Amino acid sequence: MSGEDDLIARYFVPLASDPGAFGLVDDAAILKGSSDDLVVTTDAIVEGVHFLPDDPPDTIAKKALRVNLSDLAAKGATPAGFVLTLALREADERWLAPFAQGLGEDATHFACPLLGGDTVSTPGPLMISVTAFGRVPAGRMVRRTGAAVGDTILVTGTIGDATLGLGLLRHGSPAGSPAAKKALIARYRVPQPRVGIAAAVRDHASAAMDVSDGLAGDLAKLCKASGVSAEIKLEQVPLSPAARVGLATKLTTIEALISGGDDYEVLCTVPESRLAAFVAAAKGQGVDATAIGVIRDGTAAPRFVAAGGRAISLTRGSYSHF
Amino acid sequence: MSGEDDLIARYFVPLASDPGAFGLVDDAAILKGSSDDLVVTTDAIVEGVHFLPDDPPDTIAKKALRVNLSDLAAKGATPAGFVLTLALREADERWLAPFAQGLGEDATHFACPLLGGDTVSTPGPLMISVTAFGRVPAGRMVRRTGAAVGDTILVTGTIGDATLGLGLLRHGSPAGSPAAKKALIARYRVPQPRVGIAAAVRDHASAAMDVSDGLAGDLAKLCKASGVSAEIKLEQVPLSPAARVGLATKLTTIEALISGGDDYEVLCTVPESRLAAFVAAAKGQGVDATAIGVIRDGTAAPRFVAAGGRAISLTRGSYSHF
Repeated sequence: MSGEDDLIARYFVPLASDPGAFGLVDDAAILKGSSDDLVVTTDAIVEGVHFLPDDPPDTIAKKALRVNLSDLAAKGATPAGFVLTLALREADERWLAPFAQGLGEDATHFACPLLGGDTVSTPGPLMISVTAFGRVPAGRMVRRTGAAVGDTILVTGTIGDATLGLGLLRHGSPAGSPAAKKALIARYRVPQPRVGIAAAVRDHASAAMDVSDGLAGDLAKLCKASGVSAEIKLEQVPLSPAARVGLATKLTTIEALISGGDDYEVLCTVPESRLAAFVAAAKGQGVDATAIGVIRDGTAAPRFVAAGGRAISLTRGSYSHF
Repeated sequence: MSGEDDLIARYFVPLASDPGAFGLVDDAAILKGSSDDLVVTTDAIVEGVHFLPDDPPDTIAKKALRVNLSDLAAKGATPAGFVLTLALREADERWLAPFAQGLGEDATHFACPLLGGDTVSTPGPLMISVTAFGRVPAGRMVRRTGAAVGDTILVTGTIGDATLGLGLLRHGSPAGSPAAKKALIARYRVPQPRVGIAAAVRDHASAAMDVSDGLAGDLAKLCKASGVSAEIKLEQVPLSPAARVGLATKLTTIEALISGGDDYEVLCTVPESRLAAFVAAAKGQGVDATAIGVIRDGTAAPRFVAAGGRAISLTRGSYSHF
């Protein structure tokens, strides 16, 4: 048995519990046919870009899967499985064992089994690419394109914590309690995909996407895809207590919070008639969905309006790799 | 529009002709539900490992897709689409334009549309990870596990050309005609996936896989998965004229040819009763399938027998990344 096969057998076969994975001993996996549409999404994370070299391996594994589960949730899809491409510099057991453990915990927790993958060697940064599959009833995937004038814009959870956590990891901070810092770092390392609200999104949202590259930039993408504009009331953007302290003490700005990435919350638009039902359905899954603005006519960039009615301008709307 | 979005719009949206790709403006794609099983396979190629830094970009794109199409063919599946993760150091138009052109040509040629993807920046080697989808009637994916004692072992095309091509790229050679060298290098850079014989494999083979890490090592994997052994007659292993010249002039050895990687031919086992029909069906698709040996009882490693009846031993059975 080669080192590569041994590595797969030891660390990943135990995660491949789904019969369609064939115990990872075949060249391919099977997703059983059904009348449901299969939703496919793919997101990669790269060392030094999406995670830091000394992030714990279990959190790296979880982040790689969760950024994809976040996409599925925003599309209204129920997880069905995933495949993994792992580019490693070396087969280091001290890294692989906790990586596989974290991945297995999440695969079980989110009912999204490992179906297959590929492991390659690289002299460069670690990279983990996941392609995840979800199911929706035929024709029911929630697009970015359905936002209509007058729809309410909502976002789940709180915005900006992950970018604050990344800032703490990179630069540290003299201020803030250890517990608050730990919570912000956790938001960066291990996002919380809103898998539970997939059905609520499917039943009520006119358009949806996940917030991965910053709220401001991602909203602009949703508006562009839908051919509409938007107005956001900044005072309504949900912030954690730690982010509020950061704002109050001028350690951060609202611009930074809504332009930072890695939130992995659901951004969606909901018609007035569905609003109460959507918020209640999300709440029933333990998820707060907060109204932050409204879809407007036109194709202008979304306006972000502060408490006094002044619109702020953003120098950097969204994360881009190039 | 960010550089990343611009890059996707310019180079990859034109390839996303399938309605399920939503023009790459959404977060996910759709594969329509059906009673067929969906076969999923994923393979990545890395600069310096699976391709060379100065390989032409269109050949790199084609190789990335074709190594996955080869898996689908060996599983008896008809291509349905693919997603792409592209890790780049920079958005260099001179590289991306021919890369996307080559990818688009193959997506059209093999009726396997681009459904989605992710583009990330890396300071390390280029990496292209493809997850490809195919369809088979329910329960009909051809596994590695079905080889039975007495089945004939066949392989498509010729073996060893790609490893000779890689050797030429790395070390050059004083001998050989320019045309022969060019053909061997082409075998390394642009494999020929046997997409046309998917139905023949499905209808007749008891077990199959593609030869990517070397015939000897891959046959050992198939035998292990099936719980059988095998005997191969080396003089029956199909070789190209160029490989025969290499053998005759002692520029290579049969051990090197059957242990080298990157063949991307189909290796399969076929019961006696199906043999003529399989060979004829492959031939009907323009593919030569050559009988090279027979499945034997037991769990010993496959034996490779030379013309005089002497079994050769292999020092390195198959490519491993670690």
